[in-house]
Order: sequence, then structure tokens, then C-alpha cells
Amino acid sequence: MKQNNEHIYGLIMAGGVGSRFWPESRESRPKQFLDILGTGKSLLRMSFERLTRILPPTNIRVLTHEKYSQLVLEHLPEISADQLILEPSRNNTAPCIAYASLKLNKQSPDSVLITTPADHIILGEDAFLEKIRTAIDFATHNDALITLGIQPTRPDTGYGYIQYEKTGQDGVHKVRRFTEKPELNTARSFVDSGDYLWNAGIFIWKARDVIDALNAHAADIMERLRPGLPVINTPDERTFIDREYPNTPSISIDFALMEKADNVYTIPADIGWSDLGTWTSVYEQRDKDEQDNVIDGHSLTPDTTRCLIRLPDGKLAVIKGLNDFIVVDDNDVLIIWPKSDEQNIKKIRDQIDPKYL
Amino acid sequence: MKQNNEHIYGLIMAGGVGSRFWPESRESRPKQFLDILGTGKSLLRMSFERLTRILPPTNIRVLTHEKYSQLVLEHLPEISADQLILEPSRNNTAPCIAYASLKLNKQSPDSVLITTPADHIILGEDAFLEKIRTAIDFATHNDALITLGIQPTRPDTGYGYIQYEKTGQDGVHKVRRFTEKPELNTARSFVDSGDYLWNAGIFIWKARDVIDALNAHAADIMERLRPGLPVINTPDERTFIDREYPNTPSISIDFALMEKADNVYTIPADIGWSDLGTWTSVYEQRDKDEQDNVIDGHSLTPDTTRCLIRLPDGKLAVIKGLNDFIVVDDNDVLIIWPKSDEQNIKKIRDQIDPKYL
Repeated sequence: MKQNNEHIYGLIMAGGVGSRFWPESRESRPKQFLDILGTGKSLLRMSFERLTRILPPTNIRVLTHEKYSQLVLEHLPEISADQLILEPSRNNTAPCIAYASLKLNKQSPDSVLITTPADHIILGEDAFLEKIRTAIDFATHNDALITLGIQPTRPDTGYGYIQYEKTGQDGVHKVRRFTEKPELNTARSFVDSGDYLWNAGIFIWKARDVIDALNAHAADIMERLRPGLPVINTPDERTFIDREYPNTPSISIDFALMEKADNVYTIPADIGWSDLGTWTSVYEQRDKDEQDNVIDGHSLTPDTTRCLIRLPDGKLAVIKGLNDFIVVDDNDVLIIWPKSDEQNIKKIRDQIDPKYL
Repeated sequence: MKQNNEHIYGLIMAGGVGSRFWPESRESRPKQFLDILGTGKSLLRMSFERLTRILPPTNIRVLTHEKYSQLVLEHLPEISADQLILEPSRNNTAPCIAYASLKLNKQSPDSVLITTPADHIILGEDAFLEKIRTAIDFATHNDALITLGIQPTRPDTGYGYIQYEKTGQDGVHKVRRFTEKPELNTARSFVDSGDYLWNAGIFIWKARDVIDALNAHAADIMERLRPGLPVINTPDERTFIDREYPNTPSISIDFALMEKADNVYTIPADIGWSDLGTWTSVYEQRDKDEQDNVIDGHSLTPDTTRCLIRLPDGKLAVIKGLNDFIVVDDNDVLIIWPKSDEQNIKKIRDQIDPKYL
């Protein structure tokens, strides 16, 4: 059954660059627009379709940098340009969520927002939608900032960790502490304790509740944006945003809000989630051939094992004796890189002519 | 000084495929048409320019498969189509040399022929030309099949080995025995003995002497081609060759003649020769960067050493942690292959869609 969802909005965060997926991910075509999984659909498209199972397409908003507006409309022909919430600059997630919340709260004071990244995957969609319904229900009746919590499987230092009350109500648990990107030893102790969940970046809250929380904990953002309220959702909004938005501090919603607020809740959610943060995480998700390779393209791979190989249409790769490498040929860029060192793909960008980025 | 060279012809053998250089070498563009050394000139072009230091361009003939005639004329705009001696089929070097010899002997009964591969390099051109002059002089006055001999540096089983009399006349030595492609142990004993030279495939002889020798030792070839003598160098030659040439046995001049004839001579020649038989031999010839890589193209290569990397114009390669590999990106084919295993590049061709060959 669909909830009464008139005031429920899906906010897809689609402004990132995905630089760890370079060269397939480029400034002109970030990760969320790629068919990373070889399904024939971009990650953005999959995120959109997931939300349309509980929301009408008209209730979906896509938050992205203004330079990707055309690309979003190509991937999501069901939506119109006025469903795009466009950042004139990349200021991380907190200003962007603040801006969208002001718009949707003004449009409808009872708005409930489901904020979700455009570039993650969720294999257990039914479980996901069930948790989302629970969250909507809870957020509707409580001043609560809810985040879905994922059981950690490794001491990853790239995530936020949620320590939560074991007793909850209808699967919703009060968060004791939110720790964004801990040190490795801290992450290990979190995972070992069994008391922590990963923050998946999927948030459910009323627009007015998140605005209140941002006013309390991220005043520097709100002081910039709040004066625009009279023009928001009017033809003058663009001029205001173009002028003021770039002056907001660049900060994530996790640091700006989740670590600080005391009305944070989590719903432990076993939903087959991955943020597909790296090529290796894509490799892990995909089916392997008999040599444990994941290959998108036409290739011969004698004595080549545990590699991720991606090739342009019509290209043949002949690769012998390569083990545990990423090989991505993306037309004007070829990368051959050890899987074990993939976090450093991002770092080499500084040395590269911007025309290749 | 140039010798009286009216009757001296340079024959450039340019019919091979160079399959060990796939994918850069293709059926449609074999090794001799490539700028393997990164000098801006193809190997064919360099072979031609070398000969023009002692011969007028009009005295140069290019022996090749008919499908490469346009390509040869593009690389050598100084020559005209009637200087091409075209094979309708690939029957190895003996039939091709026999055919060319019949043509040039008919044209001029005193013809002396310098036969040279199109796809080798000679770094010591002055020494080479001096040896060639010696050879021309000797061949002019003697019924002699002369081959330049190279001091062997390793027990390579892909070459012909020349055992020769240590005493000679003006640097020309009688050959005792010619052994084409020996077993490894035999090759080792040849190199260790110090009595052997490599055959570089550079032959100097009078056209009528090589015809006599072929009549004696390769009668099956000559019986096919000799009946064409009346039409050779006439408009009817093509029809005859198209019909008869494909029926000649496919055999190299080394097996057909050099192993059998008793009037074979050699001139030991220290001329900086390499047949550039493999990517590794190209790697050895080239200047290396500080990580001992040879790179043609735009690349970043952290922790990458002793690799040969070749890229199309405008392509960027980012290659980390690769050692002793060949990486050749040739537009629709990418090969990543251990240098130590390069002789097997040739073998994988059977598994490849011919459109990539």
C-alpha cells in the first residue's frame, strides 16, 4: 500500500564527482550517471526507480550541481526541470539539504523528506521500502532526525558510526552518539563492540525539523540562506541562490548536524546496501568469471585473476598474468592500478591535465 | 664515393606481417610500416633511406604483398609503382627472391642485388655501407652468395648460424656451414665456440648467380617461375605471376638455398644490427626513463618499472605497480602482457576475431 504521500518528498543527492572512479567518472559525467554495475541503468536511474515504488515521480527532487541539470533530465525523463534543486557551487551536503528543506517547507509545511544518495546501491529494495515507511511514520509524529543504520562488516574509516539504544519503538532507536569518519583503531573498537551501525546517508525527517536543527547547530549556513525565504520558490530565487549559496560553509550534513543534534534516531536496516565507494566495492558486488575476474567488455585474460576490467564498446583487451588489478580503459584515459591501492587513485588527480578529469 | 652502380639494385623485402608486434602491427599495417623506434620514420622508410646513401632511388625495388602496394608508395613517395615487385600470395622469401632475380637479371644481365629486410635496424650505417661496398665488389668478380654476419650475443634459436673460415680475403670469408634455427643446446655451443655468426638476412649476389643456385637447390620454385621468362617485364607478367606464383613452395631463402649452396660467403659486420624481432628487442634498443621504462605517449607511471608502454595520440595512461610488462594500446585493441612471455603473443592470435588482426 502507498502511504498518503502528498507531503512526502524524495530528495536524491546527485551532485558528487565520484573521483575514485576516475577515469570512468569525470567532471562532465560523475559516478551517479554511470552504469557501474553493468545493469544497463545508471546509479541515478536506479535510485529514482527505487523511490517511485512509494512516491509519484512529481514528488521527487534531484539536488545537483547546475552543470548536471541536462544530464539528470536525460537520465530521468519522467521529471521536469522544476524538480531540480540546483547548486551553483559544490558546498557539500549540509548547505544543499538546508536549501532543499527551505524550499519544500515553504511549499508544504508538513513536508517529510527522504534524502538519499544517487550513487549507492540497495539490493534489498522491499526491506528498504519497509524501513522507509516506518521512518516516515515515525518522523511524521515526532521531531526526529532519522537515519538508516547498516550493520558494519569492516572497520571502514570512511563512514559515520552510530551508537544507539538497544531498546527502541517499532524498530526506531534513539542514537546515543554519532561519530563521523573515526580513526582506524576507534572504528575497530566500534565494530567489535557490536553497538554501532554505519550511517548510510539515507535520512528521513520533516523539513521543519531539519530546519530547526540546522538553525540550532549550523547557524552559519542558515544565516546565509534564511534571508532568501521571501524569494524562495519565486522567479527571484535563482538570483538569490547564485549570490548567497557559494558563501555558505562547505560542510557535510554528518559533521554539521548528525554529530551534534540530540534528536537523532536510527532504524537498523538489513537492506543489501553498498555505497559503491571504490572499484573494489564494485568488484565485490559483481558476479565473477571462473578466474574471479569482473569484465565489462571483450577480452582474453590468460593467467589473469581477480581483476576488474572495463572497456569501451568494440575494444578488445588481451591481458596476461595480471592479478588483483583494476584496468579501466575509458577512451582517452587508460588506468592500470592495483586494487589494494585504489584509495590513491583520487590522489593522482592533482598531477593530471584537467582535460582528462 | 659511389660505386658505378648502374647495375646495382637494392631489394627491400617488405612482405611480412610482424605478428609478434600485434596489436600495433596488423594485417593492414605490418611492422615495417610502423614507427617502432619513435623516430618519426617507419622501419621501411629507414631501410630505404639507408640504401639511397649508395644507390639512386630508381635502383631500389620493394618486394611486398600486392595488398601493401599503396602503403609502400605512401611511405616511399620517391619511387614509382613499377619499382614494386608484388607477390600475389605470401610464400616466404625464396620464391620472392627468385621472382625478383629473374626480373632484374632479364633487365640487366650484370645485375648485382642487395637484398635487405624492411623491418630491421642498423645503427652503424657507415660500417654497413662499407661492408656492402666490399660485398658488391666481391660479388661482381666472383660467383658468390654473400651474407652479412653478425657476432652473436645470445643463443637465439630464431636465427641462422654461419660457421666460417677464419682466414678470408678483404674481409670476405668462405662459409663452412649454414644452420638455420638450431636447437637451443646447439645454439649455445655455436655461441660458445666463437666460430659462428648470425645471418642478418642481408644478401649480396649477382642476379644470375642466385638464379643458378636456385636452379640447383630449389628446382621446384624455379620450375614454376622459369616458364614465365618470356613475359617477365612485359604487360603479361602479372597474369603469369598471379597464376603461377601461389603454386611455388612456401620456403625461406635460408632453408632453400643458404643451407645447401657451397658458394656461400660471409662478411663479419659490426653494424649495430637488430632484427627488432620482439617488443623486448625494441625495449632494449630504446632510451629508458629513470624507472627504466620506454614510453611512447602521455603517462603517469608510479612504481612502474622496466615496462614498454605505447599509446595512441592524445591518450593518457595512468599505470601503477606494473613491472616488466608490455602495454600497447592501439585504439581498438589493448594488450597488457609480461615481457618475459612475449613469444606467446603470436600464439594467442588464433583465439582472436580476425577483425582485430
